[in-house]
Amino acid sequence: MKRLTDAERDAALSTVPQWEYGALRGGVIRRVFVFADFTQAFAFMTQVAFHAEKADHHPEWANVYNRVDITLTTHDADGLSQRDVALAQVIDRIAEGMQRP
Amino acid sequence: MKRLTDAERDAALSTVPQWEYGALRGGVIRRVFVFADFTQAFAFMTQVAFHAEKADHHPEWANVYNRVDITLTTHDADGLSQRDVALAQVIDRIAEGMQRP
Repeated sequence: MKRLTDAERDAALSTVPQWEYGALRGGVIRRVFVFADFTQAFAFMTQVAFHAEKADHHPEWANVYNRVDITLTTHDADGLSQRDVALAQVIDRIAEGMQRP
Repeated sequence: MKRLTDAERDAALSTVPQWEYGALRGGVIRRVFVFADFTQAFAFMTQVAFHAEKADHHPEWANVYNRVDITLTTHDADGLSQRDVALAQVIDRIAEGMQRP
């Protein structure tokens, strides 16, 4: 899995505009989701977990009650790869189905 | 829910010796668990999540692949309460049933 070039990255990130790009660790993207309550937040995480396991690409994430803070990067690529962008797209779709505050 | 006194805290923490006490935010306890893989880690989190929701006392936690980093504190008590110790005990029991590396 190859790290995206700057041009590839810009094009890819335009498909997930709610994710924030950070230059740390060669490149990461991050998004914070807030749901109606803990049950909704964990149901979201569970759906993401199944997808991540199937794709063999896992998020770095933290949860406090109704808040889920997700960072994506590709360790093997020393930065951002197409797998991060693909996972971010799936995560966005899953979040759309959950209850917000 | 009342914050534990120093004496109560020492007695309570002796029941969960693998949790590390920290003075920040009025008092927290933290333990890092490492499992065989992501599936085991998330299965552990799912069991903890159901218990936490039932007890209406939720962890602050982060997961990266097979690693789960948990911090417990009681916001309403401005520190550590009996609910944190009770949840830590349950978490320890759940972890015992999971596959380690």
